[in-house]
Amino acid sequence: MLKLCLNRIASSSKYDSIQPRLCQCATGHPGRHDEFPFLRDLFKTNPSVANKIRRDSVMTTGAAWKSADAGPNRILRWVMLLSDSQLLKFGINMQQLKPQVIAKLRDKASTYDDCMGVARKLTWLTYQMDNAPNISPETKAYLESFGMQFSTSQTTKCLVCRDRLSFESFSRAQRGKAEIETGHSNPRLHNSDNVGFIHRECNIAQGAKTLDEFYGWIKTILKRVETDV
Amino acid sequence: MLKLCLNRIASSSKYDSIQPRLCQCATGHPGRHDEFPFLRDLFKTNPSVANKIRRDSVMTTGAAWKSADAGPNRILRWVMLLSDSQLLKFGINMQQLKPQVIAKLRDKASTYDDCMGVARKLTWLTYQMDNAPNISPETKAYLESFGMQFSTSQTTKCLVCRDRLSFESFSRAQRGKAEIETGHSNPRLHNSDNVGFIHRECNIAQGAKTLDEFYGWIKTILKRVETDV
Repeated sequence: MLKLCLNRIASSSKYDSIQPRLCQCATGHPGRHDEFPFLRDLFKTNPSVANKIRRDSVMTTGAAWKSADAGPNRILRWVMLLSDSQLLKFGINMQQLKPQVIAKLRDKASTYDDCMGVARKLTWLTYQMDNAPNISPETKAYLESFGMQFSTSQTTKCLVCRDRLSFESFSRAQRGKAEIETGHSNPRLHNSDNVGFIHRECNIAQGAKTLDEFYGWIKTILKRVETDV
Repeated sequence: MLKLCLNRIASSSKYDSIQPRLCQCATGHPGRHDEFPFLRDLFKTNPSVANKIRRDSVMTTGAAWKSADAGPNRILRWVMLLSDSQLLKFGINMQQLKPQVIAKLRDKASTYDDCMGVARKLTWLTYQMDNAPNISPETKAYLESFGMQFSTSQTTKCLVCRDRLSFESFSRAQRGKAEIETGHSNPRLHNSDNVGFIHRECNIAQGAKTLDEFYGWIKTILKRVETDV
């Protein structure tokens, strides 16, 4: 594994006192400190995809509507590891939120390190989609140093339906919603082992179930349909 | 089939000129005219269930949020059969709605007769759930006259997963949402052949697919999962 610089990156975020943002470049790197050096190429060629990877890695999902009890729209995942009383000091009153909003925010909490691992994993998966842009030798070497192998026979598949994913899915939309989303084998764990890309319709069907629960569930449905005619 | 009274029921709805509400009692019935005589018992014992059956039968689903482009919250299904210019006279400007909202409203359009058929079907299904209240001889005879048979060996099942449904599901909720919903084998057809009760999670998983499409889809998923290890 690469030895990282981990220099503190200047930020105006009020959450810096909890967890500073850290440079993820290799120690002794030239140039500016950078939290997402592995996304540098993608920020140039496909900024909306790079933004999506960064956002989904470090931020919780947002509230579906705007109101006092809906909760913050999106929030840094590690902030959601704080206790209710610590959050109150930051102006977030968890006790006024609906139980289902609290569950949603707390389920998606994760450490800064796990978030960085997720960002690397999603970047690796993105470059292995059909029709993905070419990866630069620097980014490839960086991700390989974290144990992520690249092979031409490998394609990124939807975590749920296991169908091949194409890079164009990021920009394709149905009824105003992007065709693929970031999802989790276990929806309550945000780390690199557990994260991947999922078709929106597959993600919706999976719901709050783990992948194993989902497969077991649809197996049961098909069994019942077969015997119940 | 029962010969119906079909007397016009007085109403203050502005949509009465399109389609008056009609008495669904047998011809020559005693007492008041009634559009939902088969729901009379349920309105006494379980008014929220009776209300749900009436509402889901005749009204479209509602907008998820309130704004000009979200469209009317719920609207009579037969009103959605009118043309855009006819709707404009009623103050509904379809052209200012988002395409996905228009699709949702238009998909759910259906005739008054089909809506009445759906209401009878849902009532029949409700009385055949596990732990349902007893059906009165009058209501039973009424529904039987429309060809709906009652048998003690029969139980209402979720249209999607085919698991037995219990009457208590109407009042059970998960994360603030009722456990079962009214759904359709083909989500774009609202008539008695095509309607039934569906677990909320099954309804979400089905999405815009027909039942056949849904079963085909999950079969494909399981096949891919088996071969892709």
